[in-house]
Amino acid sequence: MELLKQRIRRDGIVKGTDVLKVDSFLNHQMDVALFEEIGKEFQRRFAGCGVNKILTIEASGIGIACVTAQFFHCPVIFAKKSQTKNIAGEVYTTKVESFTHGKVYDVIVSKQFLSARDRILIIDDFLANGAALEGLIDLVDQAGAALVGAGIVIEKAFQPGGDRIRGQGIRVESLARVQSMSEETGVEFVD
Amino acid sequence: MELLKQRIRRDGIVKGTDVLKVDSFLNHQMDVALFEEIGKEFQRRFAGCGVNKILTIEASGIGIACVTAQFFHCPVIFAKKSQTKNIAGEVYTTKVESFTHGKVYDVIVSKQFLSARDRILIIDDFLANGAALEGLIDLVDQAGAALVGAGIVIEKAFQPGGDRIRGQGIRVESLARVQSMSEETGVEFVD
Repeated sequence: MELLKQRIRRDGIVKGTDVLKVDSFLNHQMDVALFEEIGKEFQRRFAGCGVNKILTIEASGIGIACVTAQFFHCPVIFAKKSQTKNIAGEVYTTKVESFTHGKVYDVIVSKQFLSARDRILIIDDFLANGAALEGLIDLVDQAGAALVGAGIVIEKAFQPGGDRIRGQGIRVESLARVQSMSEETGVEFVD
Repeated sequence: MELLKQRIRRDGIVKGTDVLKVDSFLNHQMDVALFEEIGKEFQRRFAGCGVNKILTIEASGIGIACVTAQFFHCPVIFAKKSQTKNIAGEVYTTKVESFTHGKVYDVIVSKQFLSARDRILIIDDFLANGAALEGLIDLVDQAGAALVGAGIVIEKAFQPGGDRIRGQGIRVESLARVQSMSEETGVEFVD
């Protein structure tokens, strides 16, 4: 998605060779006009797939998921990160390791809102090592729901998550795939 | 806002006399079509106030804030809950006590995204004891930004936060003000 790549080139800040800060428009300050274009593009790519619910994970996926859901005319559920013990039976639970924060979270979704009748599109801001996305996929599997695919805003294609998850036969659509980055030369995209 | 009150009456679940669960449409599963109506109503109430940025707090405020921002044509910033020590100088920090989780969080916003040039509308899903809202107001004050007011989806008017904050001269617009609730009689609204 060219508009997004331009924005990353212009406003993204590269630290070292693997940190890309996009908090001026994506995940701290949020440019909702850009989110509308992102939502339209996800809708274009997953049109006709029968998506009836979007699943994301708190916190930075929520804004993108909600704006995207307007184009699918469906609700959003966000999986919650929890460090508290949950009541068995009421929620689907999975574990997600955050490499950024050096923690393992329990990630939960209420069983009420995810069922075998659902056709789920997962939306998230970043895909790198794939831990968060695999956690969300596990929640969809536990519910017996159909997974239509995952829509990712920025994929760090030099990290293993995207290839591993595509290797499981899951459709992953990333709007900007970063091949490499450096503080000197900036961001290089795949293609 | 009548549509919202109807939805709360229909789908809200009252536990005891002070817990109102609205996680089927507001803060776990999110009905973005309802959020559009909420956003329009906030825009109607704060039209002409020169809002150039919306401030909210993770996680459940983010979806409502993003959809609302589409009607104001402005970006959103979400304040982050952090239990890690932050680098002095780069962020505004305040402390917020969560009564639900029995914890005190540091809540932070990058100084880059909040400044004396901004006219801020705060958006959040709930107002009860007022701790989260007062934290957000403190962040706006630290930045020297102008606070236009706060737009709240559901206010528990029987808890002290709303009155205390209005008593400081701050404009608080709540779309549904709950006067009392019980498992037997459901939710009663102010007015």
